[in-house]
Amino acid sequence: MTDPTDPSAALLARRARLLGPAYRLFYDEPLQLVRGEGVWLFDAAGRRYLDAYNNVASVGHAQPQVVQAIAQQAARLNTHTRYLHEGVLEYAERLLATLPPTLGHAMFTCTGSEANDLALRIARSHTGAQGLIVTSWAYHGVTAALAEASPSLGPGMRLGDAVCTVTLPLRAPPDQIGPIFAAGVREAIATLRARGVATAALLVDTVFSSDGVLADPPGFLADAVAAVRETGGLFIADEVQPGFGRTGDSFWGFARHGLAPDIVTLGKPMGNGHPVAGLAVRPEVLTRFAEQCRYFNTFGGNPVAMAAAGAVLDVIEQQNLQANARNVGAHLRDSLRRLATRHRHVGAVRGAGLFIGMDLVRDGDDPRPMPELTAKVVNGLRQRGVLLSATGPQVSTLKIRPPLVFERAHADLLVDTLDDVMTTLA
Amino acid sequence: MTDPTDPSAALLARRARLLGPAYRLFYDEPLQLVRGEGVWLFDAAGRRYLDAYNNVASVGHAQPQVVQAIAQQAARLNTHTRYLHEGVLEYAERLLATLPPTLGHAMFTCTGSEANDLALRIARSHTGAQGLIVTSWAYHGVTAALAEASPSLGPGMRLGDAVCTVTLPLRAPPDQIGPIFAAGVREAIATLRARGVATAALLVDTVFSSDGVLADPPGFLADAVAAVRETGGLFIADEVQPGFGRTGDSFWGFARHGLAPDIVTLGKPMGNGHPVAGLAVRPEVLTRFAEQCRYFNTFGGNPVAMAAAGAVLDVIEQQNLQANARNVGAHLRDSLRRLATRHRHVGAVRGAGLFIGMDLVRDGDDPRPMPELTAKVVNGLRQRGVLLSATGPQVSTLKIRPPLVFERAHADLLVDTLDDVMTTLA
Repeated sequence: MTDPTDPSAALLARRARLLGPAYRLFYDEPLQLVRGEGVWLFDAAGRRYLDAYNNVASVGHAQPQVVQAIAQQAARLNTHTRYLHEGVLEYAERLLATLPPTLGHAMFTCTGSEANDLALRIARSHTGAQGLIVTSWAYHGVTAALAEASPSLGPGMRLGDAVCTVTLPLRAPPDQIGPIFAAGVREAIATLRARGVATAALLVDTVFSSDGVLADPPGFLADAVAAVRETGGLFIADEVQPGFGRTGDSFWGFARHGLAPDIVTLGKPMGNGHPVAGLAVRPEVLTRFAEQCRYFNTFGGNPVAMAAAGAVLDVIEQQNLQANARNVGAHLRDSLRRLATRHRHVGAVRGAGLFIGMDLVRDGDDPRPMPELTAKVVNGLRQRGVLLSATGPQVSTLKIRPPLVFERAHADLLVDTLDDVMTTLA
Repeated sequence: MTDPTDPSAALLARRARLLGPAYRLFYDEPLQLVRGEGVWLFDAAGRRYLDAYNNVASVGHAQPQVVQAIAQQAARLNTHTRYLHEGVLEYAERLLATLPPTLGHAMFTCTGSEANDLALRIARSHTGAQGLIVTSWAYHGVTAALAEASPSLGPGMRLGDAVCTVTLPLRAPPDQIGPIFAAGVREAIATLRARGVATAALLVDTVFSSDGVLADPPGFLADAVAAVRETGGLFIADEVQPGFGRTGDSFWGFARHGLAPDIVTLGKPMGNGHPVAGLAVRPEVLTRFAEQCRYFNTFGGNPVAMAAAGAVLDVIEQQNLQANARNVGAHLRDSLRRLATRHRHVGAVRGAGLFIGMDLVRDGDDPRPMPELTAKVVNGLRQRGVLLSATGPQVSTLKIRPPLVFERAHADLLVDTLDDVMTTLA
């Protein structure tokens, strides 16, 4: 690792020196990327990699319409929301049109962390309560308030006193998932109450990205949300990962559950990599917060961010990327499931559209997790030119969430390469 | 305001409907901007305004080198810090070279709020303490953890139980400012201790932007910082506003106090409006945080952000903007002070470089604040084509912090226009 004649070793040493010990790199052999185009990423040696992981570059790496929108607006004006500008209004109008009509107001931040943090502030102002219920391997962001509600950051993170977790019954029989999860949420409400804490909100990623990916059965979230609302709490749908068409069946992950959230938070793919994020909220829920303090985010909702976000909506519409996510995603899940006939370690394949989790298990009939094998598969794929990662509390679920411009041929290349890797590791 | 035939009334109504009640606009007659160039902003009717307020567009609105850097890198690659990329390392190296050598590591976020929030997490991990000391009209950001440490957000914001404020002796005799402030910090440490809270950090904006702007006497912060360090706490310099050459005498606001902070936070002008921010930290201070959890910010330190930030450093260097800030700032402060001979409401003029606060008072000899007059002056300047704002707990200090490409002729236009406005209001 410290061979001075190896350029990547020199780069690693320089990185450790400059950025310090809190940063992490992907892969046993980290990847130095220099260029991207559509679903492809290119390393310093010119080798190309199929990107089956990056949900941020949702409409494709270096997408020309998005790049042009950013460049044109940056050359014209980039100020803030204390002046009037049509850009933020046009985008807010387009965004709110994709959401339930009860979500009347949009607010803009730069990151999903800022969006979830703001949602939490608004929920606590509205309810006058502090309690927050999240899943047991949730990730909602890096601010102080969210890190203490993100158990997936690891055992070194202390959860907040007002935070209570519920385990997602990822591998329960489909008809039991909703009842078990709702019972867990009711128990969390009671646990918080016993601590003297009232519940402000249930905050969940509607495709449960970090818990191991769970989309089905549609509607399973409804009972849990009803339980929180009965006690006066809000439902915050964290759409930072599932949103903007990725789940295929609908534009938002919560929609497959037949729900209208009180607050919806947005991020990652919203600007295809440009830092833009935000939330939509029921006007009644925002009232008290707005009475207590103003809201201003220096870069949030600025004209360049809004131009980037608008171009992303254009591309999703023009290229029918939500339908593509549905169709290619269904084909990919079917192909992944067929691998189980050839590889005993292939377990359940879950997800919706182009957000897919695939368990690696002891055996098809023995669902014990295989984290070491999962790490080998992820690294083996990287060596063969396919990029993805792993998720879940045991880190034994392959996390597959490519750019939405992923085609059937790309899905087939991914599955064939995975087939090879698993054959080699068998 | 709701006349449907007035296009700006229609825009205001549309904005209220879409963005809701928490957003604020500048000016009695809000300004719709459509274009910017250098120190100039242009409204929808084509009228130009001298920008004496926006410290974000620090190297000038729509600066061509910055725009080109963003456009070129966005067209090539925009991923994240879990892959190796030279851009983030080159920028970290350049940034750290401007800072005291004890600040060995750089970390990147998208906003100053995220930078201060991360600094607070790191400080609390390192010290094992929770207490935070800030000034009594501080603003440090919009996350939950920072809003409760930002009294300038208004009386509706409840300060955190671990937060204690110190009043900045803005108008004390110069030789008393340091001793009074240090005594206040010692008292805050004791107040926190009486609540059972140990002090993790003193967090201050080193030019005290929201408290009313205070730069002098150089060195006045040193005693307060020593008091915090004696009790085991850290000194976090919030350079989101003073940083990147604005104060003229040095590249960073803390430098005029002869201090090396434990953490320095960065933001606003860093990418000239592109959302990029971050911090620099002493490696020893980061150790425990890194043991407890990893750090990842999806857009933070991405190649486009780093290209924008690098171009900003290029322009500051090539155009000698720090020296320009010093020279034009000194000329501007002198000219503003001379206005006192013609206008009795002109009070103290404070600041460094191109960060200036000018009090409006009952009379030169009677320093009682004049908030209504200040609002009239700000709006009168806007009507005459000069943009600035007001700051301080009484909102009676004109806040002047133009792009660093501000020239003497621009300063003269600002002062002449202010002279006119004050004559009209006399």
